[in-house]
Amino acid sequence: MLTNDLLLRAARGEEVERIPVWLMRQAGRILPEYKTVRSSVNGFKELVKNPELICEVTIQPVDILGVDAAIIFSDILVIPEAMGLNYEMIESKGPFFPKTIENKNDVLQLTEDVVPNLQYVFESIRLTKSTLNNRVPLIGFAGAPWTIFSYMIEGKGSKTFSQAKKMLYTDPVLSHSLLDKITSATIAYLKEQVKSGADILQVFDSWAGVLSKAQYVEFALPYMQKITTAITEVPVILFAKDAHYILGEFAQTNCAVIGLDWTIEPEKARKETAGKVLQGNLDPCVLYAGKETIKKETEKMLRSFGEQKYICNLGHGVYPDVDFEKAKYFIEVVQQYR
Amino acid sequence: MLTNDLLLRAARGEEVERIPVWLMRQAGRILPEYKTVRSSVNGFKELVKNPELICEVTIQPVDILGVDAAIIFSDILVIPEAMGLNYEMIESKGPFFPKTIENKNDVLQLTEDVVPNLQYVFESIRLTKSTLNNRVPLIGFAGAPWTIFSYMIEGKGSKTFSQAKKMLYTDPVLSHSLLDKITSATIAYLKEQVKSGADILQVFDSWAGVLSKAQYVEFALPYMQKITTAITEVPVILFAKDAHYILGEFAQTNCAVIGLDWTIEPEKARKETAGKVLQGNLDPCVLYAGKETIKKETEKMLRSFGEQKYICNLGHGVYPDVDFEKAKYFIEVVQQYR
Repeated sequence: MLTNDLLLRAARGEEVERIPVWLMRQAGRILPEYKTVRSSVNGFKELVKNPELICEVTIQPVDILGVDAAIIFSDILVIPEAMGLNYEMIESKGPFFPKTIENKNDVLQLTEDVVPNLQYVFESIRLTKSTLNNRVPLIGFAGAPWTIFSYMIEGKGSKTFSQAKKMLYTDPVLSHSLLDKITSATIAYLKEQVKSGADILQVFDSWAGVLSKAQYVEFALPYMQKITTAITEVPVILFAKDAHYILGEFAQTNCAVIGLDWTIEPEKARKETAGKVLQGNLDPCVLYAGKETIKKETEKMLRSFGEQKYICNLGHGVYPDVDFEKAKYFIEVVQQYR
Repeated sequence: MLTNDLLLRAARGEEVERIPVWLMRQAGRILPEYKTVRSSVNGFKELVKNPELICEVTIQPVDILGVDAAIIFSDILVIPEAMGLNYEMIESKGPFFPKTIENKNDVLQLTEDVVPNLQYVFESIRLTKSTLNNRVPLIGFAGAPWTIFSYMIEGKGSKTFSQAKKMLYTDPVLSHSLLDKITSATIAYLKEQVKSGADILQVFDSWAGVLSKAQYVEFALPYMQKITTAITEVPVILFAKDAHYILGEFAQTNCAVIGLDWTIEPEKARKETAGKVLQGNLDPCVLYAGKETIKKETEKMLRSFGEQKYICNLGHGVYPDVDFEKAKYFIEVVQQYR
């Protein structure tokens, strides 16, 4: 029923007549129209809880950039909040949790029953889905259990997430019980996103890269497997930034698509992922360059991945200071590629 | 003439009777004796320019932790400063450059003739070498050209170093001219360290991981090759954090040793490095754990690397909040391993 279902067909491994393309963080940040909406509200969290405004900023990049999918505007940290751990978004610094998880009792006090607390997300999805009027697919998303765990322990962003990793080494039992709880909440959250209208889902493991492979296999992968096993309704994209060592294991899960950061060579990814659909992975900094360089780098990447079993994207969220005209040009290059 | 020359023999690929071990950032941070010295001076930079104190803090870990090498206490940012770009070290924030490199004229004003400006380092090395009295080898070091470049453009630490990368994409000619100049300065600096008494050298590419492989091959690798070709006097260790894709290329340089971060599996590293000596790579967070876990994780790593062509270390600098007794225990586990 979608006018443009390229993304869904590519995600299912079906043949497509051209490569679909969208941008991580396409909703927000770089668009002047987003900045207008953002400055009309009192803080980021007010925006995240306003379905009308979410609908507006989610559809903006479809109208302005011409991307082949919309991704619901939200934040991965709505899950810890819905579980009972409140966060603040501090301007130009990032998230901050006044209270963090320190012991078994803290974990016990969290709820897995997050759906009632996340109605504003589901309402946003319903409204956006109907407003989109089937022009393009709508992507839902959540943070990966390890990434959510790392914020709940560390309490804020970190270069090393050493406190979260300390918990893995010093109390693996507590760590697994928290990861389990986050996973149950996340599965319920994602399933309700699908019921509300999400056509495809992406799970973001933003801090995967601080873990060794052994730690990822013990504390992150099993929960990604649980999610991809539980979600059978729509395709699931797994994206674990900087976890270059895990592509082979992801290929063994029920995920439909594996997202790649820009440090992964397309040829290497193809070799290690046994026929899975791949997504990515242009260095976001290419969008700082002139049009000639953007075209050259993008087309080099497209040739390496090939036109099938592939969804074009950046290797990370678009950077805030990128000129949106450059992002738009990138989209055009992909859509005109033959 | 060294009483304990295990590190040098291992670095040259010679047979050793046990595995040598040292810690990146072993001088400073975790030692109470260091903190006493640090609090006696007015700021980090005053310490870095005081040969007597440098000698003292450089030898502390040899006495207290029992490591198989000393590494001269200094900072990779002494090079930009000696080239004419001053930096400040801001407490609990890190380095800050009041002026950054923006154009050709800025590059032209930098000097390659850094040796006269770095006499305090060479004096520190001479004093430390003689005070060490040949107990263990003394390691000298420098930042890799890409990492120094990234600070000179970005002006401070960054998660993405997007401004430095922007320069690579928008002005590759200027980028190469600056990288060339940094490389010449670095080679002169390292050669003078050797003349002053350094027995072996390590080049730290701390921000390698923000580059794609193509960018690393174009803007970082050629300068690492230049350095390893120029330094024939002593073994050179190359350590490019998070550049998981570059091991094969490093193996083709004249470096003696390749350092690994903890995201690289030992088996993978052995396969890709064609017989080079390897160094690393315990997750620094293991040192938060109890002794049982430290022993188990360390011995697992030693079994994977094997006892020859290997130097034991962490996969990154030891974290500041690690209990030095844990670091000491790690050293003991390695030295008692059979």
